[in-house]
Amino acid sequence: MLNDNVIDIAKNLMNRRSVTPEDEGCQEAMKDFLGTLGFNNETMVFDDTTNLWSRRGTEGPVFCFAGHTDVVPSGPESAWKTPPFTATEVDGYLHGRGAADMKGSLAAMLVATRKFVADYPDHKGSIAYLITSDEEGPFINGTTRVIDTLEARNEKITWCVVGEPSSTDEVGDIVKNGRRGSLTGDLTVKGIQGHVAYPHLAKNPVHCATPALTELAQSHWDNGNEFFPPTSFQISNINGGTGAGNVIPGELHVCFNFRFSTEVTDQELIKRVTTILDKHELDYDIKWTFNGQPFLTDSGPLLTATEKAIADVRGTPTILSTAGGTSDGRFIAPTGAQVIELGPVNATIHKIDECVKMSDLELLSDMYYGILVNLLA
Amino acid sequence: MLNDNVIDIAKNLMNRRSVTPEDEGCQEAMKDFLGTLGFNNETMVFDDTTNLWSRRGTEGPVFCFAGHTDVVPSGPESAWKTPPFTATEVDGYLHGRGAADMKGSLAAMLVATRKFVADYPDHKGSIAYLITSDEEGPFINGTTRVIDTLEARNEKITWCVVGEPSSTDEVGDIVKNGRRGSLTGDLTVKGIQGHVAYPHLAKNPVHCATPALTELAQSHWDNGNEFFPPTSFQISNINGGTGAGNVIPGELHVCFNFRFSTEVTDQELIKRVTTILDKHELDYDIKWTFNGQPFLTDSGPLLTATEKAIADVRGTPTILSTAGGTSDGRFIAPTGAQVIELGPVNATIHKIDECVKMSDLELLSDMYYGILVNLLA
Repeated sequence: MLNDNVIDIAKNLMNRRSVTPEDEGCQEAMKDFLGTLGFNNETMVFDDTTNLWSRRGTEGPVFCFAGHTDVVPSGPESAWKTPPFTATEVDGYLHGRGAADMKGSLAAMLVATRKFVADYPDHKGSIAYLITSDEEGPFINGTTRVIDTLEARNEKITWCVVGEPSSTDEVGDIVKNGRRGSLTGDLTVKGIQGHVAYPHLAKNPVHCATPALTELAQSHWDNGNEFFPPTSFQISNINGGTGAGNVIPGELHVCFNFRFSTEVTDQELIKRVTTILDKHELDYDIKWTFNGQPFLTDSGPLLTATEKAIADVRGTPTILSTAGGTSDGRFIAPTGAQVIELGPVNATIHKIDECVKMSDLELLSDMYYGILVNLLA
Repeated sequence: MLNDNVIDIAKNLMNRRSVTPEDEGCQEAMKDFLGTLGFNNETMVFDDTTNLWSRRGTEGPVFCFAGHTDVVPSGPESAWKTPPFTATEVDGYLHGRGAADMKGSLAAMLVATRKFVADYPDHKGSIAYLITSDEEGPFINGTTRVIDTLEARNEKITWCVVGEPSSTDEVGDIVKNGRRGSLTGDLTVKGIQGHVAYPHLAKNPVHCATPALTELAQSHWDNGNEFFPPTSFQISNINGGTGAGNVIPGELHVCFNFRFSTEVTDQELIKRVTTILDKHELDYDIKWTFNGQPFLTDSGPLLTATEKAIADVRGTPTILSTAGGTSDGRFIAPTGAQVIELGPVNATIHKIDECVKMSDLELLSDMYYGILVNLLA
């Protein structure tokens, strides 16, 4: 694998059926590659999840590539034009599960690292890899546990590039320099079940709840800021009723989610929701699940290095964005690391016929190389 | 069966496992009984449902006993103190499925009719029975089909006593002289499914719908009147969402039900609901199921005869009410018939250990007899 080009390395990884939390030897292949380049490999297994922490050098600053070897399921394989776990070239594109999210990125990182180490064997600081097989799953035994382990021994990441597919139309057109926070509420509004013919003997939790739900849906949580859109509230699931048409339900279940900016905290959101529910005099239980703080990487060495590297490769500047879903960056940023996400075009991720433009992987590898040069040469 | 007392007749019917739409020979036993008293029996089978139209006399006015031989399922038989389909005397009560709803009433009707025919063989007008085995089920092939048949040949019922268990504490304490109408709406509010992280690309149907649902739940539909409580709106079921916490649902399903007074019509309710949904600019489909018009039997010969008969037996007057669920009276009243419901105490109907006080069946038979005397002697 050491002398392979980026496409062959991507194919090697994509041919492994590493559906979360399986790794299927991807990390062993990466360890072989990195070990030969002078990296010290440390496998961290937590329950069903295999993680890799690999580092070249002992000094700071620490530049880290972060990513994952697991992929989402293929869906019905017969619906694919090419077998999802047999990487296949089609008209300049590489097809297969993980092509864009994110085995292609891993290949680009490895090739960039190989070239950088060859060009600058005595580089400054350290280069590291933080790789998990639990990014697409429950994210319990993956990056968050590795970070806990590093924090416990006071091992810090200075700069981190996550290989998530950040690009929209062309590779490098968008860099994510932050992500919104995510907070989920599971609300149970309690009423009294009864017969619809005797409403005075019952208490309809749907009737009780809709004014409060309306207020939640129409509330203005903040204005966002230069880097974040305004905080958004969405009801994802609502269920009440026995199925029978003549029974007033006893309970209503509502699941909702906040994607929130750095202008508000999870605790403030919880307080505001509670205030609204109490104002409407609901009898309720609520269970909160906190999925991650928002993070933002503002101007600094990492952003400067990244913007320069992309501009050098593309000829046009990139655009910074904090839109979209969460990524494992949310677990790394709270340690104080600067974190950005840069990866291929995300148009086909999680879909049937996931693919990546092969020339984009070459460009992406050049960008990663440029970042290394700009920070550690 | 002809010489049996009311308790033995009730037992005979209760020992038959006639769960909807089964009749298990109940109507054949009634036909034997009525045939001997000079009734002309006409069995009307519609699909899975057996119905009986039986009439003594050819002239008007036509007094009709209406009822059903089917019962609801027993539920777990092991939970019963006595076998649900073996009528059993316990401390002055007759236990078993159908004791109160409404095989006890059928027995009381038969005994009252036998006595009346013996006392007044040349009574005025006609006595009739309209019996179905589909009252507890989908009410498609039962009373409504018999009524259609009678209407098609212009055979009219003048006065009708339905044997539904109308009483609350003592037999005859309540007579239902009407029922509210029932109208069900199945509403689908359409949105656009999407990821909660990209709300601007989706349209949340729950957020769209809650203001309209609030307005529906808080609307004042009418004031009711002397005989009816105000019209009531209740949401019975609400469901939206994929189960996933990060997906904005594409549709919201809401099932609601009106119980409405004679101050409003089903068409007026449909129009008002539609106006509210349109005002909130919802994209929706709605399917209406009309379960029956409200009916009211105001002062007249039937009510006078019933009130007098009850007062003669009980010594205290009865109370008129239109509360509670629907009954097959809703299918009979629209033909122009006066309809009331009079039957045993309803405390145990549809429950485990359904029972009826045995002496109440004697009293109920005396009341039915008194009504026959007051109208047709």
